[in-house]
Amino acid sequence: MPLPSVMVAPRDKSQTSLHDLLRPGQERRLRRALTRLDEVQLASQLDNLGTDEQIRVLGLLPGDRRAPVLSRMRYEAAATLVTALAPEQAAALVDALHPDDAVDILGRVDEQLLAQILARLDRDDAEELEELLAYDEHTAGGIMSPNFLTVPPDETVAQALGRLQALAEVPTHVFYVYVVDGDGKLVGVCSLRELVIHRPHERVRDFMQAEVVSVRAETDQEEVADIVSRYDLVALPVVDAQHVLIGVIEVDDVVDVIREEATEDILKMAGAGEELAEARLFWTSLRARWRWLMAAAAGGTIAAASLSGFDAALSRAPALALFMPVVAGMGGNIGMQSSTIVVRGLAVGFLESARVRRLVAREVGLGASLGLIYGVLIGLFAVLLGADASEPWRLGVVVAGGCTGSMTLAALVGTSTPLVLDRLGVDPAIATGPFVTTSVDVMGLLFYFYLAQQLLGLGAA
Amino acid sequence: MPLPSVMVAPRDKSQTSLHDLLRPGQERRLRRALTRLDEVQLASQLDNLGTDEQIRVLGLLPGDRRAPVLSRMRYEAAATLVTALAPEQAAALVDALHPDDAVDILGRVDEQLLAQILARLDRDDAEELEELLAYDEHTAGGIMSPNFLTVPPDETVAQALGRLQALAEVPTHVFYVYVVDGDGKLVGVCSLRELVIHRPHERVRDFMQAEVVSVRAETDQEEVADIVSRYDLVALPVVDAQHVLIGVIEVDDVVDVIREEATEDILKMAGAGEELAEARLFWTSLRARWRWLMAAAAGGTIAAASLSGFDAALSRAPALALFMPVVAGMGGNIGMQSSTIVVRGLAVGFLESARVRRLVAREVGLGASLGLIYGVLIGLFAVLLGADASEPWRLGVVVAGGCTGSMTLAALVGTSTPLVLDRLGVDPAIATGPFVTTSVDVMGLLFYFYLAQQLLGLGAA
Repeated sequence: MPLPSVMVAPRDKSQTSLHDLLRPGQERRLRRALTRLDEVQLASQLDNLGTDEQIRVLGLLPGDRRAPVLSRMRYEAAATLVTALAPEQAAALVDALHPDDAVDILGRVDEQLLAQILARLDRDDAEELEELLAYDEHTAGGIMSPNFLTVPPDETVAQALGRLQALAEVPTHVFYVYVVDGDGKLVGVCSLRELVIHRPHERVRDFMQAEVVSVRAETDQEEVADIVSRYDLVALPVVDAQHVLIGVIEVDDVVDVIREEATEDILKMAGAGEELAEARLFWTSLRARWRWLMAAAAGGTIAAASLSGFDAALSRAPALALFMPVVAGMGGNIGMQSSTIVVRGLAVGFLESARVRRLVAREVGLGASLGLIYGVLIGLFAVLLGADASEPWRLGVVVAGGCTGSMTLAALVGTSTPLVLDRLGVDPAIATGPFVTTSVDVMGLLFYFYLAQQLLGLGAA
Repeated sequence: MPLPSVMVAPRDKSQTSLHDLLRPGQERRLRRALTRLDEVQLASQLDNLGTDEQIRVLGLLPGDRRAPVLSRMRYEAAATLVTALAPEQAAALVDALHPDDAVDILGRVDEQLLAQILARLDRDDAEELEELLAYDEHTAGGIMSPNFLTVPPDETVAQALGRLQALAEVPTHVFYVYVVDGDGKLVGVCSLRELVIHRPHERVRDFMQAEVVSVRAETDQEEVADIVSRYDLVALPVVDAQHVLIGVIEVDDVVDVIREEATEDILKMAGAGEELAEARLFWTSLRARWRWLMAAAAGGTIAAASLSGFDAALSRAPALALFMPVVAGMGGNIGMQSSTIVVRGLAVGFLESARVRRLVAREVGLGASLGLIYGVLIGLFAVLLGADASEPWRLGVVVAGGCTGSMTLAALVGTSTPLVLDRLGVDPAIATGPFVTTSVDVMGLLFYFYLAQQLLGLGAA
């Protein structure tokens, strides 16, 4: 979350690869590249290097560039790098970071190293970091910065500007001055622009905005992102239970949160865990995926067990089996489409109660229409393929009906499952997928075989 | 993208529903609610009302609140509302909007109404809007604001601050002053804070940042979001081919872009179109989903055709059919997990070439491990279920092997497809899903039946 003032040309996709320059004999070219690349470019390359290479690159950088580069790396990668350094070096680096970046990184190193690093910092700095580390990293407290500028309401513009000029530890972006009373309670806000356009002797309280959007430290970061995005804020103050100002969340951290939450939703929906995990965390990934697959396996075995009643039908018309994948697959696809629309709609607040009924009706209508169209097409294909069966036309009708029914059911299940889960307080992103996939498979195929029994005149076993 | 200074308490989920208050006899409560709700709360409720109700609410609002509310509505909803107004009213509202908001809304109304509205505006304003409307809405030009503050490099701090105070049309967030030379070329930037902490007679050129991250008007909004997020910017200047400053993108618009792009990716991956479409756009949705389902249908019919060679095997061991859904389903699930991780990794720039090989190896390893675990479990279940078959143990082995093989193949296909597509310059989010679903079904089931033929000693037809 560092200085916006270090601005260089946007990243060039064809930029020199440090990985190549780290080979022996490339030292001069490596040094030149390090001078030419900006912090963001260096950080994104470091993210993808091995620890030894990272340490070598860091060692070649001038001291004052190291912390800015570190703060722009992915937090996990930065934490791994910090862990590999000697505690003295790690502490020196952490000391040069903005506190909110330091917390993001230190929250990912082990307890013992954390204690060693904190012991080497100024007592005040260490205490500040410990306080911030106590907040859950997914809450407002976990992403706020403790650096902000406050003024009492009775100060004049000249006094407030004086404070700004005297500021020792400069926050990343100073765009607002927060007005707090004698107890530290947040009573107003004014932008730097307002300070600049008012006369030096005017009092802050006379032109400050007295109504300020703020959140509590324990507010979930997803809600923080939602508020910042709805109110178009660039900074959001954080207060405690007594409305005392304790931190400020800056928009660039919210941008990270929004990306992170979107990734989480996408991965959760595919049952692939919640984070783009590091390559080494094999077991973590295995565990994360385990549950979702469990649901699919259970669904598959339930399907097998339910269909076993149709054994006789299958042996008399084995062509039925050929179209099981397409009947189940078409249902699964449309179910996934419907449920994705609903899950994402709920996540971005697009779905308010007023339009829910319309949405369900529309999705089921879409499912039935698409089901009919594709059912007929696939049914015709079945007639052709099953030409050697005794009654190809009946097979075609069964396949067409099976597809249509499976797709209509799937749209209904896909739309209503996340809505019901949401109302029950269960995260629809995580629970919708397995349930929809499983139930759509079972229901669609049972319908298909039921239809076959009726239309092909096959008795159950 | 309006004023940050209109700040009120965060939205209350239990807030009064305007929909209920619009019934007859509730006029007084309605008026009270309109006073109490802030712009964001009003906008999010208007988003979910019918056009007649929207017009009634808008009419009850004081004139100076209408534009701020409109600008915070979803653009599609705002455009529908504007279309329903008389051209005079629409023009008056548009006139009060910030130009970048006006463009977002006007880009969604029809040509004829647009001409009528522009004809009623000041000539300068109309021209400015027309220029902005000429940019693709998904590019930097489409989201930039034409309002920003510039100073010549030789001006002093006092002169620059004078310009700020004299500014007629105030940009939403003024946090930076852009330094441009006599030809309008962008030569530097300085933050308001820097202006404030330097002495009045100092020249801007002496402390400005001369290296500025900027983009061209035609830069894709996804790249804009990426740059803003990597560089932690709150504003990004837009220049033309001659490096003349033509606009500034503000971070709150980028926040919207990031949410929008994440939604787009999620929906594209599920083949459900690119936007959370309005309830009325039935045909648009039908078309959007058509293509993805086409792939699934083609895959299903290919599967049916390929499997028809195993007709004889199926009639001699119909229990094989019972486990087709689980063999295909487990493969489909793990394939979706792998491809989601890769697609999202590519989208957020997590996957650089250095880690691609590791990733593929890890995913295939995960697929094989999970495949083995679940294969054995499902195989055991098959032994139990198929107890009346002639050789239940062999059936179990075929099912176990089929699951393991299908899942390993799926992980390989799921990981490599998006990587290959990305290298070919095809958007992996849109093309991965159908291809993976289809090929995993076909390959998994073919492997399963091949195994059955070998182990159950069934000759092909």
